[in-house]
Amino acid sequence: MTTRRKKIYEGKAKILYEGPEPGTLIQYFKDDATAFNAQKKAVLEGKGVINNRISEFVMTRLGAIGVQNHFIKRLNLREQLIKEVEIIPLEVICRNIAAGSLSTRLGLDEGTPLPRSIIEFCYKDDKLGDPLVAEEHITAFNWASTQEIDDIMAMTLRINDFLSGMFGGVGITLVDFKVEFGRIWEGDFARVILADEISPDSCRLWDSATNEKLDKDRFRRDLGDVIESYTEVARRLGIMKEMPTVIRGGLH
Amino acid sequence: MTTRRKKIYEGKAKILYEGPEPGTLIQYFKDDATAFNAQKKAVLEGKGVINNRISEFVMTRLGAIGVQNHFIKRLNLREQLIKEVEIIPLEVICRNIAAGSLSTRLGLDEGTPLPRSIIEFCYKDDKLGDPLVAEEHITAFNWASTQEIDDIMAMTLRINDFLSGMFGGVGITLVDFKVEFGRIWEGDFARVILADEISPDSCRLWDSATNEKLDKDRFRRDLGDVIESYTEVARRLGIMKEMPTVIRGGLH
Repeated sequence: MTTRRKKIYEGKAKILYEGPEPGTLIQYFKDDATAFNAQKKAVLEGKGVINNRISEFVMTRLGAIGVQNHFIKRLNLREQLIKEVEIIPLEVICRNIAAGSLSTRLGLDEGTPLPRSIIEFCYKDDKLGDPLVAEEHITAFNWASTQEIDDIMAMTLRINDFLSGMFGGVGITLVDFKVEFGRIWEGDFARVILADEISPDSCRLWDSATNEKLDKDRFRRDLGDVIESYTEVARRLGIMKEMPTVIRGGLH
Repeated sequence: MTTRRKKIYEGKAKILYEGPEPGTLIQYFKDDATAFNAQKKAVLEGKGVINNRISEFVMTRLGAIGVQNHFIKRLNLREQLIKEVEIIPLEVICRNIAAGSLSTRLGLDEGTPLPRSIIEFCYKDDKLGDPLVAEEHITAFNWASTQEIDDIMAMTLRINDFLSGMFGGVGITLVDFKVEFGRIWEGDFARVILADEISPDSCRLWDSATNEKLDKDRFRRDLGDVIESYTEVARRLGIMKEMPTVIRGGLH
């Protein structure tokens, strides 16, 4: 059924197909996991199904509080209908606690609370390893306007507040997360909306009681139980109870 | 005579000694050259003398157009009297043409003119390799305030305009440069002024006709004729004619 659809773009973890109407796309979640700029690869059975559900859950609730995003509706286990956007070539990272590349770059022990939430921009370019950039680079190369950066930062802080509350409420600490944004044109005016996905692939999530990692770092650092941890996140958010048995079966 | 002075700080290319009056320091220019975070080292005879003279020349003229800086007066071949400042731990880089780490980071051919001048901030920490940071990190960790960043950017753009004109006038293209700033306290109020040095150690300078490098890249990239090139910069600026014979002798 899906074989004859036109593939628009294939990334490391998702595929975009032409949607049923102009201005829509179908976002397909793969089981493929990559890290360190795709130097490390694996297939994690069921990951795409879980991320499709978690991202649906988060995007729907963000939309409800007025954080406009590309999600329209979930179509099936691995696919969701989304609005087509002109992707802004930035990975927007929001950090509450030092971890990952920030720890390395600034010599901060992982787990150090930051003095305040910090937003970082990386230029989306796999060949260059998604380098950190500043507003100076973004506006000089016209990747986004100053107004768009302001909008992106304001939306990112709202997303951070919402996700911190949502995960905090189920005993999970939101350490950091990565989001992407895109433009929707309305005549001559471009509105920036949240795109891509929000899932354990794109967030650092630590169990608040034990600091156990429940996110992609389990894959990056060979900690094992990757799918079990993603499933635990879904379960705590109340998504797991409706998870299809095919996935539950894959966990044991 | 200088042996009993109190050393305040020794860096890779300069030493700071206690000055004759409170609020002053003596800045001594060494012949030591380092690159790649001091992984590469050499002694370039006469470099300190040339840089002391070029920095005096530039700082004096910047002061005259109202860019406040730490330079008070040159004392001798290798030393200048400066105002003591509380150094802001940032390397402020202003780029007009892609080169060095920007070329590598963003995949731009060296020599590509930038769409506009770009100011970058790196956190001064040798152990961390002076990592690129954004305003977000600078204000979150309180390395400088938003107002100080604004002042630094405005001063840096003025310095860029002045140096582009000054070097352009003698057939040298200003590709990029690095400056540092410090605070001078006046009661409870801290004023930000230009500190450190401006010399072929801290600028990329290309001969406008041939694109020949006349700066520290000659040392970094083993191009030879390092001192000859620094001397050529001084000569074009009209400094060389007063250069002491001990240095001229060292060039042949």
